[in-house]
Amino acid sequence: MEKTFDLADIEALERFYRVNFITKLCGINNANLIGTTDENGTSNLAIFNSVTHIGANPPFMGFIQRPLTVPRQTYDNIKRSRFFTINQVNNSFFKKAHQTSAKYEKGVSEFEACQLTEQKVDDFPVPFVQESFVKIGLSFEEEHLIKCNQNILVIGKIQKVIISENLIDEDGSILLEKANTTGVAGLNTYFEISQIGKMKFARP
Amino acid sequence: MEKTFDLADIEALERFYRVNFITKLCGINNANLIGTTDENGTSNLAIFNSVTHIGANPPFMGFIQRPLTVPRQTYDNIKRSRFFTINQVNNSFFKKAHQTSAKYEKGVSEFEACQLTEQKVDDFPVPFVQESFVKIGLSFEEEHLIKCNQNILVIGKIQKVIISENLIDEDGSILLEKANTTGVAGLNTYFEISQIGKMKFARP
Repeated sequence: MEKTFDLADIEALERFYRVNFITKLCGINNANLIGTTDENGTSNLAIFNSVTHIGANPPFMGFIQRPLTVPRQTYDNIKRSRFFTINQVNNSFFKKAHQTSAKYEKGVSEFEACQLTEQKVDDFPVPFVQESFVKIGLSFEEEHLIKCNQNILVIGKIQKVIISENLIDEDGSILLEKANTTGVAGLNTYFEISQIGKMKFARP
Repeated sequence: MEKTFDLADIEALERFYRVNFITKLCGINNANLIGTTDENGTSNLAIFNSVTHIGANPPFMGFIQRPLTVPRQTYDNIKRSRFFTINQVNNSFFKKAHQTSAKYEKGVSEFEACQLTEQKVDDFPVPFVQESFVKIGLSFEEEHLIKCNQNILVIGKIQKVIISENLIDEDGSILLEKANTTGVAGLNTYFEISQIGKMKFARP
């Protein structure tokens, strides 16, 4: 049996009920950890469910940053240092990744607090997450203030990709099921994935 | 064994290999069908892998539209009519949903061409996909031209949600595994999902 919610019905929902409901309407996304470094050299790590492909050539990725009404260490660090890393979460450490969403004080590294391992690669100025199988280093490219709710779309240019060699298929595809990539819905529900089809380029 | 790709290595990849590689770096996303109607009343339906939660209160969702260097019926229809629908793809019809990515001429409805069913709800001016279990009707809210590659972030305000009643959990969460929600990576690889954890709000 289908139920219809109009905007007025949605606005009348209890606050936490509404968050659970609305945040899952877009379905599943990948869980990703964004790594940054603050002005004192302290690493920061935060889980995001909004990382999106922006372009392949040149290669860009983006994510949605919540409003700056409270301190946002990830955003502040990116704007200051101009670099960040995106690290795909996998099923072996999704609970540690979720724990990065706790409000740790500035000066505390979530790598230490959540028992994840910093990985430095070449001279890239921001740490990657060693436990991740797919890690991307980016430089800040541009940002857009979303007028309707003061969120920010942050876009980075891919400068470096570190990936386990056995996770790249012959055609360049990253084998996400083999990587045990973790999906996430809303703020709290995690999923494993199983491939059900690889389709050809569609023609009418 | 880990392999590192620098930007120059990525730029040197063969074109299709690079697309397969870069589009899967953000991991898995939900497959969603966006429905619109053109100025002659012909319905349009197109699959997107970039639908993102923008805000819960007021409720907003967005997606990334590729550049307007070729005709983009979804975008043109949204800008003209100011309304669109987002319909979660599920495993029972993901192949039909993929087929909407073929280049059908203007005047051809992908609903008919791909054997999906239009569903009108109340007086909402754009059709939903009957086969979908989670359907959202939105009004155009704002857009942002992404300077680095001319993509566009399109944001809509949620006006209506149509959902199977048995897919809403006690706390408002949508039960995505029960809904057989389909994940997608890049342009061609589809996944089913299995819940592995529902976590509590994290505290330090």
